[in-house]
Amino acid sequence: MRQQKVEFKSKAVEYIFDASFAMLEELFPKEKLVLITDENVFQHHSSKFEGYKTITLKAGEEHKQQNTVDHIINQLLQWQADKQTVIVGVGGGVITDMAGYAASIYKRGVKLVQVPTSILAMVDAAVGGKNGVDVGSYKNQVGTIYQPEFILFDYSFLPSLPEAEWINGFAEIIKHACIRDKAQFDFLAGKNISNFRNDPKLIASLIEKNVSIKISIVLKDEMETGDRKLLNFGHTVGHAIEATYNLPHGHAISIGMVLAGRISESVNNFTAYEQQQMTDLLAQYQLPVSFSFDKEKVWEILINDKKRENDTMIFILLNRIGEAGIFPISLSKLNNIIGEMLK
Amino acid sequence: MRQQKVEFKSKAVEYIFDASFAMLEELFPKEKLVLITDENVFQHHSSKFEGYKTITLKAGEEHKQQNTVDHIINQLLQWQADKQTVIVGVGGGVITDMAGYAASIYKRGVKLVQVPTSILAMVDAAVGGKNGVDVGSYKNQVGTIYQPEFILFDYSFLPSLPEAEWINGFAEIIKHACIRDKAQFDFLAGKNISNFRNDPKLIASLIEKNVSIKISIVLKDEMETGDRKLLNFGHTVGHAIEATYNLPHGHAISIGMVLAGRISESVNNFTAYEQQQMTDLLAQYQLPVSFSFDKEKVWEILINDKKRENDTMIFILLNRIGEAGIFPISLSKLNNIIGEMLK
Repeated sequence: MRQQKVEFKSKAVEYIFDASFAMLEELFPKEKLVLITDENVFQHHSSKFEGYKTITLKAGEEHKQQNTVDHIINQLLQWQADKQTVIVGVGGGVITDMAGYAASIYKRGVKLVQVPTSILAMVDAAVGGKNGVDVGSYKNQVGTIYQPEFILFDYSFLPSLPEAEWINGFAEIIKHACIRDKAQFDFLAGKNISNFRNDPKLIASLIEKNVSIKISIVLKDEMETGDRKLLNFGHTVGHAIEATYNLPHGHAISIGMVLAGRISESVNNFTAYEQQQMTDLLAQYQLPVSFSFDKEKVWEILINDKKRENDTMIFILLNRIGEAGIFPISLSKLNNIIGEMLK
Repeated sequence: MRQQKVEFKSKAVEYIFDASFAMLEELFPKEKLVLITDENVFQHHSSKFEGYKTITLKAGEEHKQQNTVDHIINQLLQWQADKQTVIVGVGGGVITDMAGYAASIYKRGVKLVQVPTSILAMVDAAVGGKNGVDVGSYKNQVGTIYQPEFILFDYSFLPSLPEAEWINGFAEIIKHACIRDKAQFDFLAGKNISNFRNDPKLIASLIEKNVSIKISIVLKDEMETGDRKLLNFGHTVGHAIEATYNLPHGHAISIGMVLAGRISESVNNFTAYEQQQMTDLLAQYQLPVSFSFDKEKVWEILINDKKRENDTMIFILLNRIGEAGIFPISLSKLNNIIGEMLK
């Protein structure tokens, strides 16, 4: 077990790596805990939930909607859960998002613990305090920034994770490498998913490295007025196609990164050679690097993105592999670029 | 116009007293503003809303529910309101609560301006950053603490306020006097509602005095871990009967204060003479001081109150008029006391 305390502006968060789920009972009185999970996690790890009040949600992004939050709130009220309740999100990004959001609004905020069970939630969704709920097809239109008290990384959840979820998680790991860490990019280029799936120590160390990349960026800019935006690399077009075509998050942002790379070539001197390197790495980790989509449909979602400011979209582009920057692009120029690319 | 900047932990808030609604246009570009109001306010002041994107809600506490928030969010998305949007709550406490909540969750938080139009909202609901939405009969079970950028006090809204709303507002003003300000209590004892309704300067100065009482308490304890709880005097039983019997907020907390005063007599040496003074003052301002209710029904709501901690209810009791304290009372003892009182 390795423990790291991170002082965010709003509160201090304890990151506990290589932790055991059973630690929960040591942290808080069991009767104050309410666990939120999904049917998949519950099915594979039902013994872990024994003796806990547990809300088990249907699995899948399509349930990350307000009516699921309503269900959580009603269940908490039925249990007469008071202001000293601790909500624990046990699952992938959909679950940690909804648990985080519910904790931030129930009785104007109760304590929160996150237990991410997927690679993606461990390296990204559960780290940094952002949560969100979709509104129809629009991703994360509602949410808060709310830090948990603890994040427990229990790697015993990983063996039951389907391969598709490993692939999903590596999209965010490659993103971190592209925007911040050339050494990690080169390291990843020498490996593949099987290497990590078959070596618990290797994946543990990769996860911890990526958590620290994300923390270092978030710490500088918790409220996302500057550098935190870099983490949105690949996420603007990514979110739009994810919502429209119901793609896995990792697939959507992989395609989003390829497109953002091409925009970086076109307006930011990012080289074709590096673009090829990035595309190759994504493909090596079994992520899609091309996709045909309906430009009009995607555009409509795109212009409702949180990163739009009036007639400008804030786009994250690469200067080179390992270094990203923030670029405002006018909607009309963006429309042209995307039109050109999709010809 | 008098302006006061208050530095809360999360942000600085500008309180602008004796302001004009028209100032809004000077503070932000008109096209970034989205006004939220109710049918009553809109009807009486429709000219003020000309040229603004306005969401007009049905009036009344029964609409302070999640489905109304859903409606606000959907309207914002339809208008493609971006992260630079400024939400402006123009109304009584129900409106400032819902506008504040919507601003705190839309795109993980956009800017907020409050324009309270009732006495109650001016001296209480719009001040201090708390917002809330009811869940069925349970008051404010969901919400956040989220400070606005500005609070505009435009007294030109007051002449159209019905008498019942003046009475409502004085419940909170008397509460402030009881918990913190004996001099204000004595001052109020020499006046009545008509005196204030007929003297714009007198009510303006009373409002500003009460805003400063509330701010001084909130500033010490923004997140309500200690002294801010004092503001809940009369609100525990008050909220329970308000929800159950659909009473106006001021009526409910007037009765709640009478009950809390009697509990103060029974466990805290508050004198019968002072209890009579408080009851007389509430009656002088046309507030109800007795009510017969179904103990079982009220009890069920009471035990879901946010101020319950396990088997204890945090109750605010008076030491004397002008001074309150925080007292944990076990649920069993509370049940006995309330049972005795309602015999």
